Amino acid sequence: MSGTGLACPLPLALPGRVVLGHGSGGRMSGELIRDLFLPAYGNAMLGRMEDQAVVGIGGCRLAMTTDSFVVKPLFFRGGDIGSLAVHGTVNDLAMGGARPLYLSAAFIIEEGLEMESLRRIAGSLGRAAARCGVEVVTGDTKVVEKGSGDGVFINTTGIGLVREGVKLSAAGARPGDAVLLSGPIGEHGIAILSEREGLEFEGEMVSDSAPLDTLVAAMLAASREIHCLRDPTRGGLSSALNELAAQSGVGIEIEEGAIPVRESVRGACELLGLDPLYVANEGKLVAIVDERAAGAVLEAMRSHPLGAEAARIGRVSGEDRGWVRMRTTFGTTRVVDMLPGDQLPRIC
Amino acid sequence: MSGTGLACPLPLALPGRVVLGHGSGGRMSGELIRDLFLPAYGNAMLGRMEDQAVVGIGGCRLAMTTDSFVVKPLFFRGGDIGSLAVHGTVNDLAMGGARPLYLSAAFIIEEGLEMESLRRIAGSLGRAAARCGVEVVTGDTKVVEKGSGDGVFINTTGIGLVREGVKLSAAGARPGDAVLLSGPIGEHGIAILSEREGLEFEGEMVSDSAPLDTLVAAMLAASREIHCLRDPTRGGLSSALNELAAQSGVGIEIEEGAIPVRESVRGACELLGLDPLYVANEGKLVAIVDERAAGAVLEAMRSHPLGAEAARIGRVSGEDRGWVRMRTTFGTTRVVDMLPGDQLPRIC
Repeated sequence: MSGTGLACPLPLALPGRVVLGHGSGGRMSGELIRDLFLPAYGNAMLGRMEDQAVVGIGGCRLAMTTDSFVVKPLFFRGGDIGSLAVHGTVNDLAMGGARPLYLSAAFIIEEGLEMESLRRIAGSLGRAAARCGVEVVTGDTKVVEKGSGDGVFINTTGIGLVREGVKLSAAGARPGDAVLLSGPIGEHGIAILSEREGLEFEGEMVSDSAPLDTLVAAMLAASREIHCLRDPTRGGLSSALNELAAQSGVGIEIEEGAIPVRESVRGACELLGLDPLYVANEGKLVAIVDERAAGAVLEAMRSHPLGAEAARIGRVSGEDRGWVRMRTTFGTTRVVDMLPGDQLPRIC
Repeated sequence: MSGTGLACPLPLALPGRVVLGHGSGGRMSGELIRDLFLPAYGNAMLGRMEDQAVVGIGGCRLAMTTDSFVVKPLFFRGGDIGSLAVHGTVNDLAMGGARPLYLSAAFIIEEGLEMESLRRIAGSLGRAAARCGVEVVTGDTKVVEKGSGDGVFINTTGIGLVREGVKLSAAGARPGDAVLLSGPIGEHGIAILSEREGLEFEGEMVSDSAPLDTLVAAMLAASREIHCLRDPTRGGLSSALNELAAQSGVGIEIEEGAIPVRESVRGACELLGLDPLYVANEGKLVAIVDERAAGAVLEAMRSHPLGAEAARIGRVSGEDRGWVRMRTTFGTTRVVDMLPGDQLPRIC
């Protein structure tokens, strides 16, 4: 392997204080979960490090997932914290092969928030839920003093039923599988950043925030030989692929030239010194699929509005297990590592 | 009726900005839910205003509830935000007659929190869950910049199975029913306040934070003629009783002299100008029970460590529907109203 270090880095002691990087979805987040939360809760389900838990209840396989949303600003092109809070949780259920059914919505509001902003956010959350066919069945509202919060934070927790016969897992990738991506990357992160910093780029930057459950349904209708699904949110495509490689104990090889990135996003990333592989998405998925089914699944993705630009971006290998490698457009090969901490904080 | 106003106050427009009172669990919280959240989400389940939703999944009745915890300080006598986050959600499930099964735990951490504090909190959360026999199956961690949060906020969302044949509802109280209370009130609120303000009172102030699921199980084993259960948290006993009176469309008459309050809490309340009826509890419940079953249920409560000081505090009447009235120790009768806003913010 290259000289970037050990495939399984030695665990470092956690630092004395929590830093922004611990919420990045990158390596520091993983260390916090592994070294602090898992020992505290200690059970097999959490240890699997999936985006959703699957538990048996009354003969059904129920998926459950939770996410708190702290995105800044609250409103951005392509969405707001309300719709994002629905899409994020619906997508985590969908990645487990579950049909999303019910959501909880809990608000932590900073004193002084304009009531009209809260009304817009709740309305957007409600409409997004209705569009996904999920019901918000329970909620909670807390208010903290000015300066003890930041506008509003929203937690949504979702439950859904795992479709019969479907078994998706971050540990399911096998050498020879195809790696598919549902569309161009980096749009959510760049939209948030340009909104936050008041930047103007060529071409409009719009978040890709969208619910992926019907796309997943179409893919599963095309083939049950889908082994893993993951939505590359915080930490971007690189984190998602690294997690899949680590959990499955396989290598992943991708082609830089095959990864769709819009010109506008590529330009913005160049200006800002960002790598689109590390920029967040909120309406994309990576699928690891048995090679024999890859054509049918890709076709199903392309027939769906949210997968129209889907592409095959690489393959799973039995070599360099735990690593993601990329053949660049220059013909060289480089390791695509996980970021240790945050590239863009408060992206979701 | 007394001269305090209409039984159903005319709706007032929400103010232009969110204030602390909107998170109080009192009348302002109710207005925010009714005028902003319900129209946004619009479904029958939320409109019932129970502490938990009950949905049918695969032939089972599944209860789901969510709560965000923003208590200040994070550590207090009798508990901390970690154990409180388990007890609060377990109790909301228990009040619906459900056996708690699975929890999610989502942390919003302020940058700079001592890692050791986070470790203590997660450990406490894990131990509390283990003691309740619930598993933390999924989680999330976000970190916000210093000054955009306050130490740590925790959301827990719980699911459980409603016991066969049990039908508890805030709308289930009937004239003639007995009103039972599981023990002395006001301990959590006074413990938090004394910790926060560095106050010293006669007698140690310890939060009553505790999981009530086994107490509820013992009560349901004694009789299925329990009509309503509610844990009087934010807003205290007065809010819980007012909600039950409003949801059931009945009057509730209580006896001041029958309501257990520890001398230490009574003394602290007098010094601080607080009414124990409005002070938060985190390990107590109110039960509204068919008169014929009241003796058996009270006996079951008193046989349980968390109900040893249980008392019959009043009855449900068909008069003054929607109101709670109290016969004072002076022999007069007064209306026990809901507080409009907050007596003690960030109590849970």
